[in-house]
Amino acid sequence: MIVDDGLEVLTETEARQLLASGDVGRVGISVGALPAIFPVNYRVVDGAIVFRTAPGSKLSAAVANAVVAFEVDDFGVYDRTGWSVLAVGQAEVVTDPDFIAAVDAAGLRPFADGVRPAVVRITPTLISGRRLVHPS
Amino acid sequence: MIVDDGLEVLTETEARQLLASGDVGRVGISVGALPAIFPVNYRVVDGAIVFRTAPGSKLSAAVANAVVAFEVDDFGVYDRTGWSVLAVGQAEVVTDPDFIAAVDAAGLRPFADGVRPAVVRITPTLISGRRLVHPS
Repeated sequence: MIVDDGLEVLTETEARQLLASGDVGRVGISVGALPAIFPVNYRVVDGAIVFRTAPGSKLSAAVANAVVAFEVDDFGVYDRTGWSVLAVGQAEVVTDPDFIAAVDAAGLRPFADGVRPAVVRITPTLISGRRLVHPS
Repeated sequence: MIVDDGLEVLTETEARQLLASGDVGRVGISVGALPAIFPVNYRVVDGAIVFRTAPGSKLSAAVANAVVAFEVDDFGVYDRTGWSVLAVGQAEVVTDPDFIAAVDAAGLRPFADGVRPAVVRITPTLISGRRLVHPS
């Protein structure tokens, strides 16, 4: 199914597979009534997006119990290929030690140095994806 | 200046240089009261972010005269390096032929096939950037 010129809509299965394959995604939130987007290292655990942040940070405050957008993509500049996946869902700070153990087991490791003890989970209620297509 | 553990704040000059160096960025908007993030090919023209879209698309409707977030980043998975720039500003559909000629001259070419005649301009009122630092 092609919705927009040159873009093919992914199935939810494809979108979830690509979401699970990523390493850096972007969280879209509101900070002081203004929109903002921050990159995070993430993993998918039990179908949810998880990342680490520092308690008290802008990001931590903004995502707590808010509905947020999460996007991941991969594009090739030279061959004009690529895809993107958008997930929307409620974010929450997780304290359940079993879940945090599963997050650690998934290999979540922020690129940034420093301690980021807060684990944020986004449970997607909407997942969509698009892929560039170039019919020959 | 380091604000968050492992992250250095860029000067506005550095942030604008990196913003101008990118090819794919992400626009953060609201669609039907839900947050969303869409990747776009863009250029910087006269200090503003410009991209093309199709009139009538979700993206086109959402950005018209709205305050939006725009993010671009570049990360290296293996050496854990990278940077991100966030710009916030009002978006508008531009029809001025002189400005559109300048956009074309800047080499704006969407990866996606198809006709995207609407030129959207985001005039940033806030620009910030961060870079990963790993002191040895």
